[in-house]
Amino acid sequence: MDLKPLLEKKGGKIVLVVLDGLGGLPVREDGKTELELADTPNLDALARRSACGLHVPVDYGITPGSGPGHLALFGYDPKEYQIGRGILEALGLGMEVRETDVALRGNFATVRYEGDKPVVVDRRAGRLPTEENRRIVAKIAEKVKEVDGVKVLIKSGKEHRVAVVLRFPEPLPPGSDEINDTDPQAVGVPPLKAEGKNPNARRVAEVINKLSKAVAEVIKDEPKGNYLLFRGAAQKPQIEPFSVRYGLRAAAIAVYPMYKGLAKLVGMEEVNPEGETIADEIETLKRVWNDYDFFFLHVKKTDSYGEDGNAEGKIKVLEEFDRELPKILELEPAVLIITGDHSTPSVLRGHSWHPVPVLLHSPFVLGQTSRAFTERECLKGELGIFPGYKLMQLALANALRLKKFGA
Amino acid sequence: MDLKPLLEKKGGKIVLVVLDGLGGLPVREDGKTELELADTPNLDALARRSACGLHVPVDYGITPGSGPGHLALFGYDPKEYQIGRGILEALGLGMEVRETDVALRGNFATVRYEGDKPVVVDRRAGRLPTEENRRIVAKIAEKVKEVDGVKVLIKSGKEHRVAVVLRFPEPLPPGSDEINDTDPQAVGVPPLKAEGKNPNARRVAEVINKLSKAVAEVIKDEPKGNYLLFRGAAQKPQIEPFSVRYGLRAAAIAVYPMYKGLAKLVGMEEVNPEGETIADEIETLKRVWNDYDFFFLHVKKTDSYGEDGNAEGKIKVLEEFDRELPKILELEPAVLIITGDHSTPSVLRGHSWHPVPVLLHSPFVLGQTSRAFTERECLKGELGIFPGYKLMQLALANALRLKKFGA
Repeated sequence: MDLKPLLEKKGGKIVLVVLDGLGGLPVREDGKTELELADTPNLDALARRSACGLHVPVDYGITPGSGPGHLALFGYDPKEYQIGRGILEALGLGMEVRETDVALRGNFATVRYEGDKPVVVDRRAGRLPTEENRRIVAKIAEKVKEVDGVKVLIKSGKEHRVAVVLRFPEPLPPGSDEINDTDPQAVGVPPLKAEGKNPNARRVAEVINKLSKAVAEVIKDEPKGNYLLFRGAAQKPQIEPFSVRYGLRAAAIAVYPMYKGLAKLVGMEEVNPEGETIADEIETLKRVWNDYDFFFLHVKKTDSYGEDGNAEGKIKVLEEFDRELPKILELEPAVLIITGDHSTPSVLRGHSWHPVPVLLHSPFVLGQTSRAFTERECLKGELGIFPGYKLMQLALANALRLKKFGA
Repeated sequence: MDLKPLLEKKGGKIVLVVLDGLGGLPVREDGKTELELADTPNLDALARRSACGLHVPVDYGITPGSGPGHLALFGYDPKEYQIGRGILEALGLGMEVRETDVALRGNFATVRYEGDKPVVVDRRAGRLPTEENRRIVAKIAEKVKEVDGVKVLIKSGKEHRVAVVLRFPEPLPPGSDEINDTDPQAVGVPPLKAEGKNPNARRVAEVINKLSKAVAEVIKDEPKGNYLLFRGAAQKPQIEPFSVRYGLRAAAIAVYPMYKGLAKLVGMEEVNPEGETIADEIETLKRVWNDYDFFFLHVKKTDSYGEDGNAEGKIKVLEEFDRELPKILELEPAVLIITGDHSTPSVLRGHSWHPVPVLLHSPFVLGQTSRAFTERECLKGELGIFPGYKLMQLALANALRLKKFGA
């Protein structure tokens, strides 16, 4: 619901800690999950005096990507707000995206020429080594800086992947990204022509087609990776920023570009830690404590180890966070939330659909419902199982930032 | 949400067992429900290693009919997809319904004539004995095979009830069933004329009026049941079939026509057991195991005994299912769900609004939250209380048939 009419002018500080991929499943014969196996005395003590529960990031049975998972935590229903593939790719590589931009994911492919007509031989250029990717991207970046007055920004991802941002001279109207992929999803056929579904998209499509040609000209002598296929053209989604939606000055403390980028999409300010550890992130939290009302603190490694199927690694990161937790409590936030953007059970080696444990600490909770911070104990908690995008409402309420609804 | 973009091309087999009217209420002084009184060691053991919860078939406090209850289990929100009374009646009597059809429920009534004008004397013809019904229907079926080029199919129900299917030569556009009942809901007045709310419905209404006349002519000399009143004109609902919606080849194993009919409405194939027992149904499940991805297995008697207020009978059916359960487990379905389409507490002698226990077994559950398969133990489960129509999403997720949503 629209909270703007209910917003108080002030209220307490809110800390949202996202332990990426937090939730898990039984990893051993005894049926215990990563959270149950981890030795986390501080988290468990906090859970006992907090409101606990589990959130469903997107919908029952739906496995969220990082984009939808974070949008939900930021209070935006991910079924309504969708972030295009190109935008996520660009954010993940630390590129800025603006209202004037269309972002694309590119794949280096190998083509042969029939006359001057390219025919796809390998859609991923044999999963080009990342070093090769960087070398070829440098060539492109040097030669193709602009197409038709549109600025071209390109950055290497892993293996055959790149992100491209087309920066137009003026903001683009919504729908300008309704363009097909040029990747034909098959070999032995020519790349597709980009075509737009409306006049604005047709203008962008024309730029993409000219870019394809210009790039091909520059890299045509590469034995592998002599062509760029484009996918997932996308504009920055139209999202009401945190300051307007919640009246919050919000800071994002994260190490990985994707999460900084997602936070910036909703208008948070990026505050960079000096190092990459959880301790470094909390040090940064302390440093900027007086400058913001809301703090998003992102811990990546819980997810990374989950994706590797490394339960021990995930457990160690949980224990590492547990040791640092008292430093956050010392700041005495009005509201401290600890949760994840989705579950990443190490037995599944990937994101999953399972509801994610939530702990919300404030002076205004029942408490004493959950004995520890685990999936099963959170099931007994006062928050129940609820849609992830409702969490921000609970955060604001507990920070006494919401007025009564109706008289 | 639309799952089609998320569907994997393959995945595990899913078995959905519907114990009709499963949920109950305390039946004795000690406060125990039918499920709690039943001796079900296999179900209880399975519940301990499954995800448990309760589903709300339609909405809080809403008592579902069999149609809405099953639509929800099949993943269609029953508040959006409605099945007309005439269609349910026809399905319940084992009649096929097609895109070309309008189905009606008919009641034998007794009328007297003022000149040639019929006036209703008894709206149910004194609850005509079923045998009499059959005799009169046979007369009608012989004499009235067609009206205005529209095929007329009629079948006896119980007492005064019949179902009629009008089969037009071509598919009817939506809305062709917007027609009033001819039953005036009162005696001492003439039957109502069928009237359509739009041109297509007016054409169907005209056929109904001509049919009323033709039938009256054939049975005018019957002392009781000399007229047919029509209610609930309905077309086959427009429902996206299972194969498209979920990419599943689905089989329906049921004994009663209504449930076979409901399953066929969503595109399942009817697979008929040799006999009528639960063991016969499971034998059929084994027989067709390799031919389908999804199996709906319907057990009726839990509901029938509930409706009779016969708690002991309901308990015995639960125990009978429990004894057969290991045969289903031997097939090793990727996902096994055991639930009901609604509750039928024997103390209420009818369907009720109470959430229905659910057990979902797959390798990807927490488990160890519920000690038995009962209403109270399911409340402690990891699925919580959730909308019934979300169950199919959980089934697909647990069968690893859904891709990640967003990147």
